[in-house]
Amino acid sequence: MLPEPLLQLIELLARLPGVGEKTAQRFAMYLVAERSGTAVALGHALTEISEKLKSCERCGNIAEVDAGGKAECGICRDRRRDQSLLCIVARVQDLLAIERSGAMRGRYFVLGRLLSPLDGIGPDELPLERLFKLLAEEGVREVIVATPPSVDGEATALLLARELTTRGVAVSRIASGVPHGGDLEFADQITLGRAIDGRRSIDSR
Amino acid sequence: MLPEPLLQLIELLARLPGVGEKTAQRFAMYLVAERSGTAVALGHALTEISEKLKSCERCGNIAEVDAGGKAECGICRDRRRDQSLLCIVARVQDLLAIERSGAMRGRYFVLGRLLSPLDGIGPDELPLERLFKLLAEEGVREVIVATPPSVDGEATALLLARELTTRGVAVSRIASGVPHGGDLEFADQITLGRAIDGRRSIDSR
Repeated sequence: MLPEPLLQLIELLARLPGVGEKTAQRFAMYLVAERSGTAVALGHALTEISEKLKSCERCGNIAEVDAGGKAECGICRDRRRDQSLLCIVARVQDLLAIERSGAMRGRYFVLGRLLSPLDGIGPDELPLERLFKLLAEEGVREVIVATPPSVDGEATALLLARELTTRGVAVSRIASGVPHGGDLEFADQITLGRAIDGRRSIDSR
Repeated sequence: MLPEPLLQLIELLARLPGVGEKTAQRFAMYLVAERSGTAVALGHALTEISEKLKSCERCGNIAEVDAGGKAECGICRDRRRDQSLLCIVARVQDLLAIERSGAMRGRYFVLGRLLSPLDGIGPDELPLERLFKLLAEEGVREVIVATPPSVDGEATALLLARELTTRGVAVSRIASGVPHGGDLEFADQITLGRAIDGRRSIDSR
């Protein structure tokens, strides 16, 4: 009933995370009906990101390709950043979230994936060689492992801790506990257990 | 913190209906990170719809532009359709919904908007001239007004009924009442009132 180009658009929009057939159809209808040119502009923007954006060659963050065809993100380019401190994250989104917090003055390394034996992702599937090379070249002394506090995230953190301490790097893990503003009554058992285990002494001197 | 092309993409994605800043960012991250080429394909599909799709010149449905640059939708092209029966709808989505029901054997006319005094949309903003011309040329004898059962939809239906009956066309309005499978207990007062007013005699001969 719908013309072929529209069906194709709907199918592609339905690939977006959390978007089903119905929502994709709604998006497509909006894009077709709307005269102010969002469809054209969006098509252009999509072509542009696939041409101009790449993974940062050093850390894996999103970076603009420069005139020479190289991609280095703004964080890696920033020489004021502490080169001896490295934060390892699973995804670019996590990097952005930590940046927003303003609590990280070092640089990053995006793993791109986590250990996941059930999905057949073992240590060989992680970019460890690239990480070790970077550690050696940049003289990193401290690593903060900021993988998520999930089963896969914890497994990855353990692997990293084992591999990095043998290389003489201080490794720490981000704290897990009751979030700011969170209610203890509604926190799950594991979170509360971690909050207790990870308690810190209050220095009231 | 994010590169300019990505910010632009997020801004455009946030124009989609029901999509906010956060969701747009999630979509954009998916499109950037994903390597299977959805971004490129989607960019291409969007360019294609803006080139290949137009409003059907007769009814306003979505139509593919033919080699001669004319746009006539599949429904208007279908000569088996009853030319003397016309269904007037507000939006293309409504046309598609009625088509899915399979209950309409005539053709359509998409108004594109409804009377809405509060938004400054009066009778002059509706494509009435085009509608009257079409009625005369095609010898339409019966019109079904399928604008939505909202305040604006009812106002538009009344206007159409007044204008069309003076032109010798039989005008009817789609029924409004408790939907199929609906629960009377949870139906609102107006819907129930309409269901009672619009009751039909049961012929049990």
